[in-house]
Amino acid sequence: MSTYTRTPRSRVRRLAKRGVYDRETVHGIIDDALICHVAFVADGAPRVLPTAIARFDESVYLHGNRNSQMLRSLEDGAPACITVTHVDGMVVARAGFHCSMNYRSVVIHGSGHRVEDARKGEVLDTFVERLVPGLTADLRAPTAKEIRATTVLEFPLVEVSAKVRTGPPADDEPDYILPIWAGVVPLEMKAGRPVDDPRLGAGIEAPAYVRRYARRLAGARR
Amino acid sequence: MSTYTRTPRSRVRRLAKRGVYDRETVHGIIDDALICHVAFVADGAPRVLPTAIARFDESVYLHGNRNSQMLRSLEDGAPACITVTHVDGMVVARAGFHCSMNYRSVVIHGSGHRVEDARKGEVLDTFVERLVPGLTADLRAPTAKEIRATTVLEFPLVEVSAKVRTGPPADDEPDYILPIWAGVVPLEMKAGRPVDDPRLGAGIEAPAYVRRYARRLAGARR
Repeated sequence: MSTYTRTPRSRVRRLAKRGVYDRETVHGIIDDALICHVAFVADGAPRVLPTAIARFDESVYLHGNRNSQMLRSLEDGAPACITVTHVDGMVVARAGFHCSMNYRSVVIHGSGHRVEDARKGEVLDTFVERLVPGLTADLRAPTAKEIRATTVLEFPLVEVSAKVRTGPPADDEPDYILPIWAGVVPLEMKAGRPVDDPRLGAGIEAPAYVRRYARRLAGARR
Repeated sequence: MSTYTRTPRSRVRRLAKRGVYDRETVHGIIDDALICHVAFVADGAPRVLPTAIARFDESVYLHGNRNSQMLRSLEDGAPACITVTHVDGMVVARAGFHCSMNYRSVVIHGSGHRVEDARKGEVLDTFVERLVPGLTADLRAPTAKEIRATTVLEFPLVEVSAKVRTGPPADDEPDYILPIWAGVVPLEMKAGRPVDDPRLGAGIEAPAYVRRYARRLAGARR
């Protein structure tokens, strides 16, 4: 299976057995996400902000208003770290020390670059399509002004690792005889019933891809 | 209402109207969270990792193995940025440019310090209690060795801001007549039915606070 090369900073250190480097796992974790957290250095101090993320092939893309401080900090190749995290369960052990969470996370180290105007429309379309599969075809087409007002950054997936915890608690052997409940409370992001815009035109109904948005969250690839 | 003082780095810049600085809103967003993303600088580059978070009074606490690179980087007061994010909905507009998400986020700038051994047990108990209300009283008590193996860092809430988006899409005025559906798909973290540890002792049932964990996610304060 194709894997990312471990580097000193992409290698998982704490609980190294949870480290995963194969592309399929990394891609799946990113593709299940709606947002990531992006770290950059501003005025010498670390800063981390949430933003939407989408992957195509071996790159992830961020976008936003061209005046965004974060995008302006990163558009000329300043070092960044992009992390995607899913919390899949609360792990209740017999001792606080072994209580944990089940999770899937990906950490991407590297630098981004601006997507040029000629390619931006296509990337933005695909971005929308990743977040709400089916939506792109229904939207009013973007204007040249909107595209100019949007910065799109591409970060190639080079220094990348995933970390995954699944399964029951791992208690100390003598604790298994204690009369204490232990197990996992599964956690999952769920979509509720779509809420119409109060200004929605008469007779317009939510399309199937919106009514069944839960499928997107459950992972299109699964 | 009591508010945090805005500083050049805590002031919300992009879409400043979404900035919120009152303590009640900030506390509520942190208290609804299970995890945060912590940014620090390692070897001159930004790094961001997910970890559990709990707030008491005007501090947030992080904890983990004392060998954790992140905790070791931060225990002596290196600058950090801690961000908590909830995605509350996918905002589907009539144009891609106005598609968005509803969210609540908090960004904390500052430095942490180690909680001393004498206070660590109490803080860890309260930490567990924040993540799974009711659990602390049922757990096997922590050992001195476990407490020594755990680093707990306290970050006072000083430079803090929240950013919140709620409500329907904000389309361009001429687009409201287009025959396109628009609205919000609500998103929420949900708890499933607890899964017993395969090694659970006979006759031990999940306590009520585990079976009703969904309440914790829905926000204890609400």
